[in-house]
Amino acid sequence: MIKVSVLGAGNIGTHLCKAFLKSNEVLLLENYNRKGEQINNCPVNIVTDLQKLQKADVYIVTFSDKALTEIPETLSHLEGIILHTSGATPMNALASFEKHGVFYPIQSVRKEIPLNFKEVPIGIEANSPDVFKVLKKLAESISNHVNLLDSQQRLQLHIAAVFANNFSNFMYTQAADICTNAGINFKLMLPLITNTIEKLSIAAPSELQTGPAMRKDNLTIKKHLTHLEDDTQKSLYQTLTLAIQKYYGKEL
Amino acid sequence: MIKVSVLGAGNIGTHLCKAFLKSNEVLLLENYNRKGEQINNCPVNIVTDLQKLQKADVYIVTFSDKALTEIPETLSHLEGIILHTSGATPMNALASFEKHGVFYPIQSVRKEIPLNFKEVPIGIEANSPDVFKVLKKLAESISNHVNLLDSQQRLQLHIAAVFANNFSNFMYTQAADICTNAGINFKLMLPLITNTIEKLSIAAPSELQTGPAMRKDNLTIKKHLTHLEDDTQKSLYQTLTLAIQKYYGKEL
Repeated sequence: MIKVSVLGAGNIGTHLCKAFLKSNEVLLLENYNRKGEQINNCPVNIVTDLQKLQKADVYIVTFSDKALTEIPETLSHLEGIILHTSGATPMNALASFEKHGVFYPIQSVRKEIPLNFKEVPIGIEANSPDVFKVLKKLAESISNHVNLLDSQQRLQLHIAAVFANNFSNFMYTQAADICTNAGINFKLMLPLITNTIEKLSIAAPSELQTGPAMRKDNLTIKKHLTHLEDDTQKSLYQTLTLAIQKYYGKEL
Repeated sequence: MIKVSVLGAGNIGTHLCKAFLKSNEVLLLENYNRKGEQINNCPVNIVTDLQKLQKADVYIVTFSDKALTEIPETLSHLEGIILHTSGATPMNALASFEKHGVFYPIQSVRKEIPLNFKEVPIGIEANSPDVFKVLKKLAESISNHVNLLDSQQRLQLHIAAVFANNFSNFMYTQAADICTNAGINFKLMLPLITNTIEKLSIAAPSELQTGPAMRKDNLTIKKHLTHLEDDTQKSLYQTLTLAIQKYYGKEL
């Protein structure tokens, strides 16, 4: 059994605790969070003082990127493997610890929304073969999709996720707002959205592009711009239409 | 049985023929397409001369928006109900026909990719209660999600679909390109993408926004911009980050 403690009880920290609690290969020792908050539906011991952490094999630090910069100092008393879970922070941010690495769940999670960790890909990186062995075992005990990703790849994946997740979600928000203003139920659009996503497993998104920008349908583009009332939406529509046409080599 | 002919053998025309062929309440008479192309896996009679169309109850015109502008002239000899399938064209584009309406499948389809029409919402509009009755029966014979949408709503939905489908897909394309350049398999991101979409059935997208822009994480934003190599991607990243922060009332 790998003895693990999770530091932080935010979105990632909460889901990691829940996933480790179910694993037969992990003994979840405790969760540290400053405010002493209990984790919903997760009977794990909570500690509020970093100095009082029990001795574990692995400490997973799920703090924000900003707070991570301070941990070489605040956690300097710990032995064992120290991991962070940040996509945008290189492994060497933990270089002051003898055994360190990264444990990056490739998923946007909210603690109040249930998550099946088995389907969450985890990118791992370690500063030695021994640490790598433990990390791999740890990751595979909760996920079916474990991948070696170095710091550079992880950062690029993190950037890619901003496009694939944050920016696309913002497009859905625009669509929902347009529907609401026109008295249309946004749920009418869900089959369209789901269908687009399903196709991603059989073809590259660049091959699936459709719409007026792609087919250079200026009549429709003009009509849409005329009937878009919100200035920000109008400007986004223009910017993205131009970007699509540039990408596919079709200048306006 | 409603006698139907489909005009056009593009993406929508092809899928409509296939769906009507399976319906017990519709007799698919023929498909018109100028080049006389057969429709894959769909044994329907093909005609290439608009003057030789058989007498049908309903003619569904799936031409491009541009070609639609000519049909009041080219189809003036037809009796029966004339429908178009365009999201961005008002119903009154067909006002020269006594019985007319709109039959708008809310889906981005490709003729080479199979489609379950039962799950495709259809927006219908008719110029009289009698025409509406036929349209409703026709639409319900192939789809479980039939909705009355007037021309104004349909246009707004069409604009919303550009955001929800075309623009979000372009975000996936950027993500895929970033992954490919870093030697990462884009498929690693599919659980992240799927998970985001699944949440749309339980919460509004505006409530699901995450990421550095949303949480005003300037450290990460700067890091991402520094490591984005493509100028267009960099510019999209900046534009969308600003738009998200403006939307959520957090100026940079």
